[in-house]
Amino acid sequence: MALTFEHWNPETALRFKKFVPRKGIDGFLNIRIEDVEPGKLSASFEVTDDMITMIGNMHGGCLSAFCDHVLGVVLYPVMPEGSWAATTEFKINLLKPVSGGKCIAAAEVISMSKTTAVVRIDVTNQDRLVAAAQGTCLIMAPKP
Amino acid sequence: MALTFEHWNPETALRFKKFVPRKGIDGFLNIRIEDVEPGKLSASFEVTDDMITMIGNMHGGCLSAFCDHVLGVVLYPVMPEGSWAATTEFKINLLKPVSGGKCIAAAEVISMSKTTAVVRIDVTNQDRLVAAAQGTCLIMAPKP
Amino acid sequence: MALTFEHWNPETALRFKKFVPRKGIDGFLNIRIEDVEPGKLSASFEVTDDMITMIGNMHGGCLSAFCDHVLGVVLYPVMPEGSWAATTEFKINLLKPVSGGKCIAAAEVISMSKTTAVVRIDVTNQDRLVAAAQGTCLIMAPKP
Amino acid sequence: MALTFEHWNPETALRFKKFVPRKGIDGFLNIRIEDVEPGKLSASFEVTDDMITMIGNMHGGCLSAFCDHVLGVVLYPVMPEGSWAATTEFKINLLKPVSGGKCIAAAEVISMSKTTAVVRIDVTNQDRLVAAAQGTCLIMAPKP
Repeated sequence: MALTFEHWNPETALRFKKFVPRKGIDGFLNIRIEDVEPGKLSASFEVTDDMITMIGNMHGGCLSAFCDHVLGVVLYPVMPEGSWAATTEFKINLLKPVSGGKCIAAAEVISMSKTTAVVRIDVTNQDRLVAAAQGTCLIMAPKP
Repeated sequence: MALTFEHWNPETALRFKKFVPRKGIDGFLNIRIEDVEPGKLSASFEVTDDMITMIGNMHGGCLSAFCDHVLGVVLYPVMPEGSWAATTEFKINLLKPVSGGKCIAAAEVISMSKTTAVVRIDVTNQDRLVAAAQGTCLIMAPKP
Repeated sequence: MALTFEHWNPETALRFKKFVPRKGIDGFLNIRIEDVEPGKLSASFEVTDDMITMIGNMHGGCLSAFCDHVLGVVLYPVMPEGSWAATTEFKINLLKPVSGGKCIAAAEVISMSKTTAVVRIDVTNQDRLVAAAQGTCLIMAPKP
Repeated sequence: MALTFEHWNPETALRFKKFVPRKGIDGFLNIRIEDVEPGKLSASFEVTDDMITMIGNMHGGCLSAFCDHVLGVVLYPVMPEGSWAATTEFKINLLKPVSGGKCIAAAEVISMSKTTAVVRIDVTNQDRLVAAAQGTCLIMAPKP
């Protein structure tokens, strides 16, 4: 059931892999894009003390924001140049507590039209599946 | 269909209303708890330049993390002292772009047992509904 | 935060209220539309023995199919004549077991554009909230 | 990230594969269990005229009810004898219209504890992915 994509922009993929966020919520989490292929992407961040709550676990909002971010990013290399993607909805199951180490998201586009795409994400931490997400992005064509 | 709650701790509610986050993702967003009543809570944060992406809108992950946070917080004043709540799953629809001003969440517990609760959240910004969320928290009893 | 709607077709609303399904999954459930106003709708079905599983409760799929149905139906009276609506995604929390009586859905459109709408649904049974759903419909304009 | 399961009951799996539903929503859909292995299951139903709406496509509620059903069924062979599973929440994306042929669900348990499990489902029809679901079941231990 592998999808084929009309567009594939390796320069966008390469730019993402080199990108170091300096601000924003992706900067707060310090998200790095690790691998990109058509319709698939892996990204990661290191859990820092600043993300740990009083209970001793990472705030779930870090994984929610991480998935929200990755949901859109996976689409850029397979959209026509100049398009943009916005997450319109997603659902996440937070499966296990996280208290340190690295969180790695594997995102996969499972359905895509000219205007919309559905993406699934698995997040692992220390070899455990810690979150699973599924959501929709709206694709906006480049302005003529 | 208003719920009644076995527990209500006004000191917890008051402590939340006075709380100023200094770190963590709630610190990044600078979330403030505004009003608390049994099973209901309003919270807010001011959109800062740091939350705006290249496209000119606030990163959706800010609203995801905000809802994830509020989903748990609304439960503390209605749980037995010493319990804790963890979001296990939620779904969010991001309805409109946000580019500034204040985001206000109104959370309501719509179902609650000793071990689990379901919460709905509306987020408004400049008098528009910008996000709607629904999710489940696990309630952990205090250790004996 | 009440929405206003550009279109309102009371004839469609009246036709829905008189409709008796003879086939399909709405016929299996025997869903009736009770009240319709702009952006809001209530619908119901009676739980029959045929819907009860070996465990003695109604099959959850009855509520899922009921919500999926109502999600689209609530939009027809507020869409331009000749449009159609299709549920593209939804999330449901099944809150309490149902074993008999009447299930009543209260649906409300919480966001609507020309091409998409987000709807929330509460399902009650014997004065208890038994399910809560939230989802998106795609609106297809009438063919010219 | 393959899960291992403490329990595996091949007799339950075999009974499911032989089961022909005569009533209920699984009877309406005429769902058949095709393959069962620990934590995985495939099930199917044939689209009948009775499931097609006025628009000419299958009612989305058929896929919602199908996923709701399969979500629980996949757990029985990996739960202790006498336990039961109830779907407490799920989310579904309806990806493409269905107008005939066979709908095949592939379900996989992605997380499981003694009291809860998270399951993902892909539904295909005529070699296209037509729905993707993710949800949670509550596991109730057998009564002593």
